[in-house]
Amino acid sequence: MPALAPRRVAVLGLGLIGGSLVRRLAAAGLTVTGYDADPGTRAIARTAAAMAGRTRAWSVAGSVAEAVEGAEAVVCAVPLPALGRVLDAVAATGYEGLLTDVTSVKEPADALAAGHAPRARWVGGHPMAGTERSGFAASDPALFEGCAWVLGLDRQTRVADWTALAALYTGIGARVVPATSAEHDAAVARISHLPHLVAAALATGATRGPVGPLALALAAGSFRDGTRVAATVPALTAAMTGANAAALRTELDGLRARLAELRHLLDAADPAAALLPALAEGHAVRATWPPGSGEPETVAADADPLLELGRAGGWVTGVADDGRSVTAVRPV
Amino acid sequence: MPALAPRRVAVLGLGLIGGSLVRRLAAAGLTVTGYDADPGTRAIARTAAAMAGRTRAWSVAGSVAEAVEGAEAVVCAVPLPALGRVLDAVAATGYEGLLTDVTSVKEPADALAAGHAPRARWVGGHPMAGTERSGFAASDPALFEGCAWVLGLDRQTRVADWTALAALYTGIGARVVPATSAEHDAAVARISHLPHLVAAALATGATRGPVGPLALALAAGSFRDGTRVAATVPALTAAMTGANAAALRTELDGLRARLAELRHLLDAADPAAALLPALAEGHAVRATWPPGSGEPETVAADADPLLELGRAGGWVTGVADDGRSVTAVRPV
Repeated sequence: MPALAPRRVAVLGLGLIGGSLVRRLAAAGLTVTGYDADPGTRAIARTAAAMAGRTRAWSVAGSVAEAVEGAEAVVCAVPLPALGRVLDAVAATGYEGLLTDVTSVKEPADALAAGHAPRARWVGGHPMAGTERSGFAASDPALFEGCAWVLGLDRQTRVADWTALAALYTGIGARVVPATSAEHDAAVARISHLPHLVAAALATGATRGPVGPLALALAAGSFRDGTRVAATVPALTAAMTGANAAALRTELDGLRARLAELRHLLDAADPAAALLPALAEGHAVRATWPPGSGEPETVAADADPLLELGRAGGWVTGVADDGRSVTAVRPV
Repeated sequence: MPALAPRRVAVLGLGLIGGSLVRRLAAAGLTVTGYDADPGTRAIARTAAAMAGRTRAWSVAGSVAEAVEGAEAVVCAVPLPALGRVLDAVAATGYEGLLTDVTSVKEPADALAAGHAPRARWVGGHPMAGTERSGFAASDPALFEGCAWVLGLDRQTRVADWTALAALYTGIGARVVPATSAEHDAAVARISHLPHLVAAALATGATRGPVGPLALALAAGSFRDGTRVAATVPALTAAMTGANAAALRTELDGLRARLAELRHLLDAADPAAALLPALAEGHAVRATWPPGSGEPETVAADADPLLELGRAGGWVTGVADDGRSVTAVRPV
């Protein structure tokens, strides 16, 4: 774990993300306290903590105040609709340290933090590490290995706070991506929220009309993967997509324009020939994704060079002990 | 292998499907001869055949005539654009036995068979077992285990021919689904061809504009799975989708209508609440897919009861030795 990383961390919310995070941070040797508003989840988490072994020990607090006591960083690991209440509970303890979250929209989270916990040192966060499962039972300490973890870097963010969290998350194997909250929200609307809406629309359509049962019997790999995230708990998907409605409208309009173009091509005299260039364009993108990693480079720990790195598709892999620079790679 | 299954099978085309099929049929103890028009593929296949061991032996012929000689069933395992040429080569040998294919559209394949090989006993076939990879090197004898394998059952199909192929494919672990060619084409437009177009459109859009590099860096599970089949060789996807343009137009229009509805919901005062019912509908479909298997039942080997089974989403798991009935299950 890098020198700058906080050593005592509280994780509020023990679902898929929070549960995975307490387990992973404890395995890295940090002092970790978890809390969940649901007594049943706390009971399950206490059993898991007792089974984790002495070298990976962590504890489950009985209240937000108990969890936050002595913490150098507090991670709110709850969905957006619960974030305001959790921030209120943190603010009520008088906490003034590092504060972050894991929700999938950053401008609304920033606004909640400014309104509900203005004295804490806020840095919005978002690990790109969901699955269609949820809850502590689905947690996995390996969930963040190699995952992109956005840390928001806006005008009001203190770079020292940003690098402390970057040290923490690179220390557990994540690729830390600097981005403004607006950039983040536009990007995830495109590559996460839009695919969630499309998966739901594909799944809904599959069952309709007399051909529905046959279609479901024939559905195989392309349907399975194209609709996988439609199996996510609908309330979570609704909260995530609804909170990013503005950016998602733009992306959905773009997709609808491309589908209208494909629909037009299906009317051609030779549809296969007409479709080929559009399919080749999609192939060129997908066959070269995910990109490889370039040579490690040193980037100054200042807002402008970090944001330039993020805009180029790069990510931070480590933080220098003096906090003045980071190690980074760009895609190749 | 059921008693009614052909014992000597020729497979013309040794790509992903044909290569997997020769290897699986040989492992089941049948006499199998493969052929591919590409000399390089034949050489690779000969090496693989030599390494397969005596109990799983199969051979690679030097011509279509050599492959078809003595065969009780001929499987054309080539993409639709090559099917006419292969059918011509089969017809030129004077072959009059069982003839089938593996292409993903059945009405065009039926028309080619009627035009190019009218003396053979044609039953169109389609295993729902592709991947985004292709070629003999990607072949896998386990590819068909549990996969749905449609066998076309139209007015001109002889039921005895249908049951012979059903015996062959259930004998290698496939779920054989009876359907008319029109029903098949409508169903696969929905659950295969449409997801392929959508995957291409999602992939193409990901990279556009200034947010493109950041978006690709943040892309994770929902993008990976939602675009996976865009990595398929574009010419294969173009041939498949283009040949089923009529059915695909209907399905694409249906999807576009659902996306227009979702776009409208994003304009609501509370988009999360507005989206929830639509997302819950998609969840209800996907979370209960794939369906389980009901109790095995006996179905008469006649066109009407078999087609009723297919329309109900059921499939054949075995063929009685006298060919008069099949064992089948329905989804639960």
